Amino acid sequence: MADKTPKQCPLAVILAAGEGSRLKPACGGSKPIAPLMGLSLGERTLCACAKAGVRRFLIVLGHRGEEVRAHFEEIGLRRGFKVDFKVADDWTLGNGASVLAAADFVGDELFLLTMVDHMVEPGLYRKLLQEPPRSGEICLAVDRNRNGLFDVEDTTKVSLINGHVQAIGKDLKAWDAADTGVFLCTPALFKGIEKARARDRHGLSDGVSELAGNGAVRAVDVTGEAWLDVDDPKALREAERSLIDSLHRGKGKEDGYISIWLNRPISVWISTRLARTRITPDQITVASFLIALVAAGFFAAGGFAAGLVGGILLQAASVLDGCDGEVARLKECGSERGAWLDTILDRYSDLAVSLAITYGYAVAHPGALPWVGGMLAGGGFLLASYVTKEYQLRFGVPYPNDTLNRLKRHDLRVFILFLGALAGAPFAALLFIGALTHLLLAGIILKGWRRTLT
Amino acid sequence: MADKTPKQCPLAVILAAGEGSRLKPACGGSKPIAPLMGLSLGERTLCACAKAGVRRFLIVLGHRGEEVRAHFEEIGLRRGFKVDFKVADDWTLGNGASVLAAADFVGDELFLLTMVDHMVEPGLYRKLLQEPPRSGEICLAVDRNRNGLFDVEDTTKVSLINGHVQAIGKDLKAWDAADTGVFLCTPALFKGIEKARARDRHGLSDGVSELAGNGAVRAVDVTGEAWLDVDDPKALREAERSLIDSLHRGKGKEDGYISIWLNRPISVWISTRLARTRITPDQITVASFLIALVAAGFFAAGGFAAGLVGGILLQAASVLDGCDGEVARLKECGSERGAWLDTILDRYSDLAVSLAITYGYAVAHPGALPWVGGMLAGGGFLLASYVTKEYQLRFGVPYPNDTLNRLKRHDLRVFILFLGALAGAPFAALLFIGALTHLLLAGIILKGWRRTLT
Repeated sequence: MADKTPKQCPLAVILAAGEGSRLKPACGGSKPIAPLMGLSLGERTLCACAKAGVRRFLIVLGHRGEEVRAHFEEIGLRRGFKVDFKVADDWTLGNGASVLAAADFVGDELFLLTMVDHMVEPGLYRKLLQEPPRSGEICLAVDRNRNGLFDVEDTTKVSLINGHVQAIGKDLKAWDAADTGVFLCTPALFKGIEKARARDRHGLSDGVSELAGNGAVRAVDVTGEAWLDVDDPKALREAERSLIDSLHRGKGKEDGYISIWLNRPISVWISTRLARTRITPDQITVASFLIALVAAGFFAAGGFAAGLVGGILLQAASVLDGCDGEVARLKECGSERGAWLDTILDRYSDLAVSLAITYGYAVAHPGALPWVGGMLAGGGFLLASYVTKEYQLRFGVPYPNDTLNRLKRHDLRVFILFLGALAGAPFAALLFIGALTHLLLAGIILKGWRRTLT
Repeated sequence: MADKTPKQCPLAVILAAGEGSRLKPACGGSKPIAPLMGLSLGERTLCACAKAGVRRFLIVLGHRGEEVRAHFEEIGLRRGFKVDFKVADDWTLGNGASVLAAADFVGDELFLLTMVDHMVEPGLYRKLLQEPPRSGEICLAVDRNRNGLFDVEDTTKVSLINGHVQAIGKDLKAWDAADTGVFLCTPALFKGIEKARARDRHGLSDGVSELAGNGAVRAVDVTGEAWLDVDDPKALREAERSLIDSLHRGKGKEDGYISIWLNRPISVWISTRLARTRITPDQITVASFLIALVAAGFFAAGGFAAGLVGGILLQAASVLDGCDGEVARLKECGSERGAWLDTILDRYSDLAVSLAITYGYAVAHPGALPWVGGMLAGGGFLLASYVTKEYQLRFGVPYPNDTLNRLKRHDLRVFILFLGALAGAPFAALLFIGALTHLLLAGIILKGWRRTLT
């Protein structure tokens, strides 16, 4: 078989036959469908593969096969993946036996092989797919960061010579890297496993070991890409921790000051709870918008108490506004249309709140002046969102997240109004943040104007 | 010499030695610097080459050499082109003699050869540059649209065999295509011209004719790309007409209804006048904005007469708002920062005008309601500009210029306000177009939401 590019290799074989006995206390039922922040380990594996360009899967079933099959069939339908199944009747012998069950289906194809209970970053799959094995060879993704391993004792280790695996096993004394459990294989793998089986060894590692003896196992270095073998409750907690971490990591790129220091920590806490429910990100978006509208209603009523309630609700809506994206990331269900709705509704909420705060003040203070101020402030908020979009379209690069940008963001605007409401002066806060926004706008416009002078 | 790609061939030789005697009545002085809608023929030629990727020029001088040199030196400095010069002492013999003056400078390079008085679309240069001549060969851009020629009698014609020029001349009886006067040459051209010179023939066509006899002149079909030999007053008028046409051709892609049927015809008329002055597009942008602000001032004053003046000024500003881009195109001086300023100031003018019309009405009709209506209308205008930018960034394609989009544009908005002012009811017009805008917004938001469902 000649070298194949990733384009021609869109099949992933997922081993989902094992019992996962050590996870039983945590997940109760079957391991592939063990929920992790609202999504099963199995669905996370398919999603990560899909992000690396793989859309065709063969799931090898064993323990509680029908239950697992139904779970993946539903995922395939919902996400538009092609999912096939093979039952490994002798899966209890070892995971090598499970791999063999895939042999007929795979035929001559190059295939990605991964474990249903490994949480793996898409980048790891991508790196591996860029290094297809030669005929008669298999490629194993290895991690050379020995100090970064989660559970060294339980990790399968490899020793390497000239980029090829020399020995493989959990108990190697001298070893160079960890076996991530992700392979890119020619059908040579099946021959290795059959050889081991003839000696009554039924682990995948045993088959790989046979091939390694012939120098037929190439190591692909994927150090730096996160992966985790989720095979006990401790690892499950680690997986949860890393998912939460990934939500915080969004920081700094698009977040404003208040997002980073106040809203994000709270919204992440809420999101990890919401992810376990059936509530969708779009529902959160709409809920956040409705809360902002209710807040506007309180502001419009005028007076300290109503303003206070309005301020608190508005700040709550702002926190919740971060949850839609976070839940979408946790449940791998982000959509462009969800982000579209979120962004647009934020603008309407800006308009409604400016209008309401001005109304609440103007009723007690007749005359045109409050309205002129309120309208300029509200216009400034909308322009603030507009200019950076226009900048990106005009100059082909996003407007940097500089101080001007961070100070003009929705999160700070809302927080100032919240503080104003606490102080009993939401309209003064509106004028203040409105004036500040127009100043920031002037700076951003100037920056665009100067940009092409150089 | 091996084939060369356009990347390696960034030199254009521009023949600017001739007298252009037939243009004298129109341009008075020298032909290359004859102004055409605010830009000399020579500068237009350099700009068209630059758009095709050529940034290095050799200008062959003859008639009024010092004057022409100074003109192109200034262009080179201003536009950042590298411009060199050679004087053809014997240019009076014919344009073949002018070409020979470039021989030493060109050396072994592949070069584009074009006439300073030909107005040529960049696409023609691009097509030619994609077909580099082989060693010993030259390529001639030919136009097979015999019926589309401007002045058939004066056109140099070619007859073709197997894609090669067989004969060339103004008086060919049987001919297949027109010689556009644009070549992509190896130094073989100089040999052909020298051969002709030995027979006391000094035209460029004579040299080309020599090469054609050896099958060394390949024809590159550029039919469909506009070109024009501007060598008499009639052709100069035709060139002006085609420039004006190109302004109208922008139609339909981004223009709204009022732009197409009212503003554009007027603004093109104004732009052709403005292009002949020293007024820059950015100055026009600012002037248009200031006129809109003055209009807002009149609206704020309230009353029929002031509103009428405001409406007329606002509509005038809207017409003038089209001139900045048109003058920029006519004078080849468009800039991203100019477009940036233009777009942003339009939004500020939207805000100022909504505010002013509401103010003018609210002074005579106290209470919060007019302000609520005015603020919602003004917010709608800003959102209308915002959503289509957001759409493009979110979905990676521009929002189509559908009915929703055309009805929400600045031009229609202003025109409705203008009509309202004529009818003595600018505030009613503001509420009407504001409400319409919010309806259109709902449609656009829905379109974005549905987009990713398919």
